[in-house]
Amino acid sequence: MTVTTFSQNFKINSKELVETIHSTADQFGAKGVWGPEPTQTGVCRLALSDIDKQVKDWFIEETTKLGCTIKIDECGNIFATYPGKNNNAAATGMGSHLDTQPTGGRYDGIYGVLSGLQVLRTLKANNFVPNFPITLVDWCNEEGARFPMSLMASSVWAGVKTKEEIYALKDIYDNKTTVYEELKRIKYLGDVECSYKANPLHAHFEIHIEQGPVLEKYGKKIGVLTGAQAYNWLNINIKGMSQHTGTTPMEFRRDALLATANIIVGINEVAKKFKGLASIAKLSLLPDVVNVIPGDVDFVLDIRHETDEGLVNIRKGCLEVIETACLNKAGNGVKLEYTIEDPYPYPATHFNKKLVEIIDEAAINIVGEDLKHKMVSGAGHDSCATNLVIPTAMIFVPSKDGVSHNPCEHTEPEELEAGFRVLLEAILSYDHYRLSE
Amino acid sequence: MTVTTFSQNFKINSKELVETIHSTADQFGAKGVWGPEPTQTGVCRLALSDIDKQVKDWFIEETTKLGCTIKIDECGNIFATYPGKNNNAAATGMGSHLDTQPTGGRYDGIYGVLSGLQVLRTLKANNFVPNFPITLVDWCNEEGARFPMSLMASSVWAGVKTKEEIYALKDIYDNKTTVYEELKRIKYLGDVECSYKANPLHAHFEIHIEQGPVLEKYGKKIGVLTGAQAYNWLNINIKGMSQHTGTTPMEFRRDALLATANIIVGINEVAKKFKGLASIAKLSLLPDVVNVIPGDVDFVLDIRHETDEGLVNIRKGCLEVIETACLNKAGNGVKLEYTIEDPYPYPATHFNKKLVEIIDEAAINIVGEDLKHKMVSGAGHDSCATNLVIPTAMIFVPSKDGVSHNPCEHTEPEELEAGFRVLLEAILSYDHYRLSE
Repeated sequence: MTVTTFSQNFKINSKELVETIHSTADQFGAKGVWGPEPTQTGVCRLALSDIDKQVKDWFIEETTKLGCTIKIDECGNIFATYPGKNNNAAATGMGSHLDTQPTGGRYDGIYGVLSGLQVLRTLKANNFVPNFPITLVDWCNEEGARFPMSLMASSVWAGVKTKEEIYALKDIYDNKTTVYEELKRIKYLGDVECSYKANPLHAHFEIHIEQGPVLEKYGKKIGVLTGAQAYNWLNINIKGMSQHTGTTPMEFRRDALLATANIIVGINEVAKKFKGLASIAKLSLLPDVVNVIPGDVDFVLDIRHETDEGLVNIRKGCLEVIETACLNKAGNGVKLEYTIEDPYPYPATHFNKKLVEIIDEAAINIVGEDLKHKMVSGAGHDSCATNLVIPTAMIFVPSKDGVSHNPCEHTEPEELEAGFRVLLEAILSYDHYRLSE
Repeated sequence: MTVTTFSQNFKINSKELVETIHSTADQFGAKGVWGPEPTQTGVCRLALSDIDKQVKDWFIEETTKLGCTIKIDECGNIFATYPGKNNNAAATGMGSHLDTQPTGGRYDGIYGVLSGLQVLRTLKANNFVPNFPITLVDWCNEEGARFPMSLMASSVWAGVKTKEEIYALKDIYDNKTTVYEELKRIKYLGDVECSYKANPLHAHFEIHIEQGPVLEKYGKKIGVLTGAQAYNWLNINIKGMSQHTGTTPMEFRRDALLATANIIVGINEVAKKFKGLASIAKLSLLPDVVNVIPGDVDFVLDIRHETDEGLVNIRKGCLEVIETACLNKAGNGVKLEYTIEDPYPYPATHFNKKLVEIIDEAAINIVGEDLKHKMVSGAGHDSCATNLVIPTAMIFVPSKDGVSHNPCEHTEPEELEAGFRVLLEAILSYDHYRLSE
């Protein structure tokens, strides 16, 4: 049986994508050598830095060459629009981000924008005019590494943050510098209103590295995302009693770290029981001295689940674990006091069913049924913001060892190319689907 | 039945001891207010500081007034000798230290020296000439808080450290300053050889606050010490894998903190099983970020036992716990690597049986059988050094809530007075016993 795909008659140069990933990494922020090959470094490209300006300039130059029109909005988002037959309709969107973590790799975000660029290059090389315009977006400051708000400018576009809020954000390395000043300084304070109403997209497709080990462990090549997890971060403090480790018998102790250890063990069981995630990864002790029993432990409990109901169950299970650990185990009959800061959770994201179906079909056509995997995103992405206001869906490619936010973040060239092929197919398929809407 | 004690006919002014504790605290380093009363502060009197010099000068002045002769040795120890009938024999020693932790209280060490001073004042006030001379020692830098070696100058005196080693120690707050320079600067670089051979004592008695909760919990007033615990500090590193908490399913994690949590729980059980102590109180995570699974955990395992054999058992049990935790639980089938720095342990201290018997009898005579308690010291003391070379034993008084190395370290005045009474009785008893040797 021959499968008919929208991209089957296209000349495709997917190697050009991999070359572009490496050449832009080399030019714009290469840092963190992890192997002997010249491509074996990470990238440090903090949002609104000089290097971010340089890659933004390059992005505009490349997309302009392809015949795109450029809009820069008042939050530094860049919209490069490839014309279609019907330019009065809102464009089909693709996008991700070109900024990185300080210890970033070559793929996180970058791969999504450059795959979108490769889609546009492919249309151009094939002299293909889509039914509707196609807009490639470089969303500004997805990482929140320098200016501490992740999904920064996509959140303003989606109406859940205001431009005033983000303008006032301060550089964590230099608290005299704000987003507003830096946007102005690097000349990316555009005049287009940052809003899905004033500057709409018809849909948003995003391809991204997984940043987790699931595809690799299951031997899959394409993740078809149905959504992103609900999550919450709870700040917890346990109070014990600081006493000399040498002079305080075990039966007279109130050890806040022992309570915390029981909690760490317990929340891991809760997460498994409810098929979600629970992690304690940031923790501090007072006084943190070899021979003084910890009198005070602070930690953050990170809980996640595919569903909002699942998150409620995990939260409940973890709170029971905390209560039990403080009640019974570590205080030798004296209950340890604890406090919990328990903010409102981030709800689960559910991507648009039609877009998920289009991506799923594209994945089957490109890599086959056996190599694609339906999953949810563990991390947040610009698509979580766009999904609030327009049809959105995402594609994942494998991350070697699940490593990300690390220079040695890696995805094999053939996996990068297969992902791009799925994105191209999905974009063409959606462009065709829009005719019937 | 009337009990005959050696001190029964003495005029005793034990309130003077408590007054001296407070007046010297007020004059020499009061710091850290913890209550509304003027006596409710701690003391910060770092070894070889200006304040330490001032209290040393005061100590010499007070003991000289009582008719003592003074020797200052080349490590800053001060020996104040009250004459006896037979001044050719080595003196009976009593001593402790006048230096404190930066967040010290009014009693740790200080109580021992000032109780010794009160013994000498009592002999003087009663015109009592002992059979043998009695030397009160202010041991230099017991705490090791500023110059990082605890039991510093008593260890040189006992021959287990050299004066060259301690002269070279650097101020942890200012690495340009050494012990040698500070001894010289404050004029306590004496000319007497720092050695139990050149400047002998016949025995060493030390009274100290417990710094733990045992006497208080058991409702006892006097601890009769039979020795001090064996102990060891093991530096342990556990390697997991840093991965995103949101993207890494529980079953694919290698969580170094989960392994550590299982270890903390396990070593607590081991300690209880072998009736010793095991504590983890200093711990650091890498990267210590909310949403990154800890890839690396460093911690110190502090183990202690009354006997060397007990310490061997605890060490063995803890090593099994570590192996099991890294093998089975946290790596989802992948063994976590770990390293252990396992120095040679400090062996158990066993005090001189005769001195322990003398203190025990003195305690029975002063507070009664029911209020004295045989125990071992959890912390190190100058007596652990002197015990290596001369008959040594110690007396403890209760510490409120077991708190020490803290400004609010507290012992009730009547407990301080009772302790002094036991020391006086023991010194007189030993002076009498020496006639029969």
